Amino acid sequence: MKLIVAMSSLLLATVSQAQEAPRSAPAPSPDVKIVAPQLDTYTRELLFGDVWKRKELSPRDRSLVTLSSLLANGQSALMTGHLNLALDNGLLPKEISALITHLAFYTGWPNAMSAVGVAKAVFAQRGIQIATPSSEPASLLTPDAESEKHRRAAVAAATSGVAPDLGNYTNEVLFGDLWRQSDLTPRDRSLITMAALIARGQAEQLPFHLNRAMDSGLTREQAGEVVTHLAFYAGWPRAMSAVPVIKAVFESREK
Amino acid sequence: MKLIVAMSSLLLATVSQAQEAPRSAPAPSPDVKIVAPQLDTYTRELLFGDVWKRKELSPRDRSLVTLSSLLANGQSALMTGHLNLALDNGLLPKEISALITHLAFYTGWPNAMSAVGVAKAVFAQRGIQIATPSSEPASLLTPDAESEKHRRAAVAAATSGVAPDLGNYTNEVLFGDLWRQSDLTPRDRSLITMAALIARGQAEQLPFHLNRAMDSGLTREQAGEVVTHLAFYAGWPRAMSAVPVIKAVFESREK
Amino acid sequence: MKLIVAMSSLLLATVSQAQEAPRSAPAPSPDVKIVAPQLDTYTRELLFGDVWKRKELSPRDRSLVTLSSLLANGQSALMTGHLNLALDNGLLPKEISALITHLAFYTGWPNAMSAVGVAKAVFAQRGIQIATPSSEPASLLTPDAESEKHRRAAVAAATSGVAPDLGNYTNEVLFGDLWRQSDLTPRDRSLITMAALIARGQAEQLPFHLNRAMDSGLTREQAGEVVTHLAFYAGWPRAMSAVPVIKAVFESREK
Repeated sequence: MKLIVAMSSLLLATVSQAQEAPRSAPAPSPDVKIVAPQLDTYTRELLFGDVWKRKELSPRDRSLVTLSSLLANGQSALMTGHLNLALDNGLLPKEISALITHLAFYTGWPNAMSAVGVAKAVFAQRGIQIATPSSEPASLLTPDAESEKHRRAAVAAATSGVAPDLGNYTNEVLFGDLWRQSDLTPRDRSLITMAALIARGQAEQLPFHLNRAMDSGLTREQAGEVVTHLAFYAGWPRAMSAVPVIKAVFESREK
Repeated sequence: MKLIVAMSSLLLATVSQAQEAPRSAPAPSPDVKIVAPQLDTYTRELLFGDVWKRKELSPRDRSLVTLSSLLANGQSALMTGHLNLALDNGLLPKEISALITHLAFYTGWPNAMSAVGVAKAVFAQRGIQIATPSSEPASLLTPDAESEKHRRAAVAAATSGVAPDLGNYTNEVLFGDLWRQSDLTPRDRSLITMAALIARGQAEQLPFHLNRAMDSGLTREQAGEVVTHLAFYAGWPRAMSAVPVIKAVFESREK
Repeated sequence: MKLIVAMSSLLLATVSQAQEAPRSAPAPSPDVKIVAPQLDTYTRELLFGDVWKRKELSPRDRSLVTLSSLLANGQSALMTGHLNLALDNGLLPKEISALITHLAFYTGWPNAMSAVGVAKAVFAQRGIQIATPSSEPASLLTPDAESEKHRRAAVAAATSGVAPDLGNYTNEVLFGDLWRQSDLTPRDRSLITMAALIARGQAEQLPFHLNRAMDSGLTREQAGEVVTHLAFYAGWPRAMSAVPVIKAVFESREK
């Protein structure tokens, strides 16, 4: 099949970069072959056989990005398989809890509430228990004072005269508390925020978070691979609309 | 916990403005505490303990905004609790019917159809019957003739050469019939339209409807609070993208 | 009822253009009348009684557009009735498979996977079997060499320095393989891509696909009717945001 030829050339291009496959190899539902055989082929050979194995992002990062896209678009019904895959790929249960909590703020409470129900079933099936937070004060991460000062002032200026208390919540709770929680690294928080923004079609808010992600260690190659991965999970147009925004951020960092 | 400290300062800022809590206090599902304990804390202390109690919008208005956001984003599975809360907050069953009908036009028929199924179960459980419209001519509201003339002409101009019948449906059905129904006030129709636009990420269409809302009595403070409330239900980025659009409308009205 | 009067004038305007109704007349769920009687009236008289009967698009095209909108917005729960209607309107089962496969790329794999489950049940109920692709090389359509050369170069330029492999997937798989499959005509692929873009609120990517659709035979009148139809399925704001983009494309083609 010519499809195979075209795809093989892509596979050849990446085969030398292949890394160990995730422990549980994902596979499409048997229904896909019955209803849309070509989609089954694409899913096996292209998505799971090629994209997920590319070395530009680790399987754990791909799981963070995939779960963020599913949650962001309210596709919790499809999270069961990907939560199991994420755990197999090394994501910790407490990191999944933190992802759901973080994305409640970035994609709205209802999406997080739907994800809670699915995660509960997966955790129960695997015998996972999430520890209750202790009554001790949590040790919060300390952001860079100078950049935090600028960020706070920018938020206050943006919201003044319209929604000053939205600015207060942003400064006191979102950045003053959520982002400082230590159950996800700042780099991972930036990664899932970026993924949610791209998946929801809000590339206009990407520059701040992409810069923040790169300040926390995300490489250019990884940023490009996030958008490549998301083409498959949020659709080509969402990815393609993010590309010029990312390009502009890369260029602005060279100056 | 530092979270509590940060949030308490917000609570302190608003506690003097607190008004009577809605009759049925909303609470997160017990699953939230099991899966994501910190999200449970945020939900109890921040969302239900603080945001819903802020005086800038009445509980009834918050229910209108929340239901609109859920319907607009196809999150009907989460509407059961919020329909009950809305009825407890004083929203009339016929107003809920009108909201679903209105948002069929503004967010698409499928979202409205999903909401119908959920509302039917809630209405049945509470013994609510919606009256069939009489065969008498409904008394329609009469819009201001001058502004209506301008609106009609703008719609006709925008759609001419591309989709003139979309212009006709807009003028004859959407504004000529739906907006003139008396089962929701014009101010409430504007409020739910604004909420749906922000929740769906279509801030570009907000100026017309925000101006219309303010012409019908929505205050600046209420408009700002709509976007603050929606940060929690549709996610921070949707709210933050709406803020500069709202600011520009406020400024344009000062001239 | 004044509603009826206003709508009748629309009906009168189009009645002379009416064509044969689709074989199975669609009807709203009986729940709609119970919960929101006016929405029931709009659905019967306006959506099914008028819009679906307009001659500017064939019933088969309307089914392609409607299914694309539902899939694009993750509304697979509502696809059962519309899949049956689509088959009644002459859409072939293999075309439905191809639509689901195509929109996996354009709206993300998860939406396609959800649609697979619904389509499987509809196909099973109607005794439809989708043939497995033969192991013979599929005969792929051959795109125009000159325009394909420009398209490839534009994709490579857009993605270079950010996500070059997203460019490769776009050129080798999306356009090099998916678009060349013969189970949907290029005109139909463009139609469903346009519908998905409008339904997802991504009018910014419409010019390329609208031009491609018109190069494949979509008329201006049909393009305008796609957006009119989508006003009802994806909501008025999505349609209205697409109108100026379509107008600009029409104008650019006159030069």
